[in-house]
Amino acid sequence: MRFSKELQDSLRNFAGDLAEAARPETLRHFRSANLRIDNKQADAAGFDPVTQADRAAEAAMRALIDRHRPDDGVLGEEFPAKPSASGLTWVLDPIDGTRAYLSGTPSWGVLIGLDAGDGPVLGVIDQPFTGERFLGGFGQAVHLHRGFETPIRTRRGVDLSDAVLFTTFPEVGTEAERQGFAAVRDRVRLTRYGLDCYAYALLAMGQVDLVIEAGLNPYDIQGPIGVIEGAGGIVTDWTGGPAHQGGQVVAAGDPDLHRQALDLLAPFADSAK
Amino acid sequence: MRFSKELQDSLRNFAGDLAEAARPETLRHFRSANLRIDNKQADAAGFDPVTQADRAAEAAMRALIDRHRPDDGVLGEEFPAKPSASGLTWVLDPIDGTRAYLSGTPSWGVLIGLDAGDGPVLGVIDQPFTGERFLGGFGQAVHLHRGFETPIRTRRGVDLSDAVLFTTFPEVGTEAERQGFAAVRDRVRLTRYGLDCYAYALLAMGQVDLVIEAGLNPYDIQGPIGVIEGAGGIVTDWTGGPAHQGGQVVAAGDPDLHRQALDLLAPFADSAK
Repeated sequence: MRFSKELQDSLRNFAGDLAEAARPETLRHFRSANLRIDNKQADAAGFDPVTQADRAAEAAMRALIDRHRPDDGVLGEEFPAKPSASGLTWVLDPIDGTRAYLSGTPSWGVLIGLDAGDGPVLGVIDQPFTGERFLGGFGQAVHLHRGFETPIRTRRGVDLSDAVLFTTFPEVGTEAERQGFAAVRDRVRLTRYGLDCYAYALLAMGQVDLVIEAGLNPYDIQGPIGVIEGAGGIVTDWTGGPAHQGGQVVAAGDPDLHRQALDLLAPFADSAK
Repeated sequence: MRFSKELQDSLRNFAGDLAEAARPETLRHFRSANLRIDNKQADAAGFDPVTQADRAAEAAMRALIDRHRPDDGVLGEEFPAKPSASGLTWVLDPIDGTRAYLSGTPSWGVLIGLDAGDGPVLGVIDQPFTGERFLGGFGQAVHLHRGFETPIRTRRGVDLSDAVLFTTFPEVGTEAERQGFAAVRDRVRLTRYGLDCYAYALLAMGQVDLVIEAGLNPYDIQGPIGVIEGAGGIVTDWTGGPAHQGGQVVAAGDPDLHRQALDLLAPFADSAK
């Protein structure tokens, strides 16, 4: 599929509109007193604010797509998939990082990817509480914050021994995946945990060098792929193949660093079993 | 020491002024391109932006104290202690969470405690990037954000099995401390890592139920104690004794929950060795 400069700009703007539409729906319940970690606290009417925020945010985005780009498909976490007539599919995760959302931590995000058939050409990571939006695609990426739009690039020239690694591990993954992660962790300078999709945003802006995860769904990673590739980074599965279907994912700011991480992860890749 | 209502208000305002003075100094280098994880990248002149931000922020706070409250003492991370002539000592950590700061993550903070001899009567946790300030003392606590000042209270009535636990572990602590932490972790509903001092702020605002750490310095914990106690929570060491000297710390939003956590931690407390 070819994208004229005009179409690129239009899609970028529309992706931003989608993120904007989701913001009030997620912020409405963030840090509200009735948000609890499980559904036991749902009241007699079955009110569950997390599910409600999740569904309302996805519904707001779907309504915009139906109205302005009715031929595009939608793959979202909360509602049935809508097939694409245009060859383009919006891949939506209205609240990525539910546990962060539930604990008041601003590392959750709204993820939006635009899949042109073999992966995203455009992606958004939006953090409504900090008011940050990371938007990448078609060879560029920007950070939008407090009215400023700043181009972002991944960090280059960082050796594995100097790298900063992020993950949501140790909470996620099989035993083999934990071993794969540990093989990289033992070689880097600093490992940090628990940042959810915000870690991909930090990688895109050159603050973090590696993110390694497993067990992802397509809607968990298509937004981040769009942002990171737009910022000059690389995202694959643990064998070096495409990552847009989810599963085991390694994102790097630098291609050489990516290769070093892959060498360590490959023995623990699903395909290696 | 007795604090009139007027003195309480004055000290609260002054603590806010200290946090305000530190903000530009920490924000100046946050996410700057030349911030790197170690000092190897310090340039030929020995320029090290983290140390510079740390020292500039503490110097800005000390200058205000010298000018407006010259009889108060100062205990800070970066400069020699100044003895107190008033019985009050400001306990300062200009950047708590250096690793968060270095990786672009807005979970670091400026910590300010006011020690009246046997622990803080007032505390501040300030997060300059999100623009959030948590200020507690003298039986109250507030969250300041975007011009709004909101009273905050810790969450009550949460059983251990429903609790949300935060820590900077698994990175910190001795083997015994890790075992103590695991004893609690295995009983709670959700454990999250890596939030630095921001976890104490989330506890004060009722989003998080427990924070457990070890190896702390006095300036790491006096600010959080002031905020949490002001919000109705409780902070002690792992034996239930005072925590303002640092070391092994457990903070809880609910006194019963605190007791349940202490029962699990006590066998691993320093004094138990």
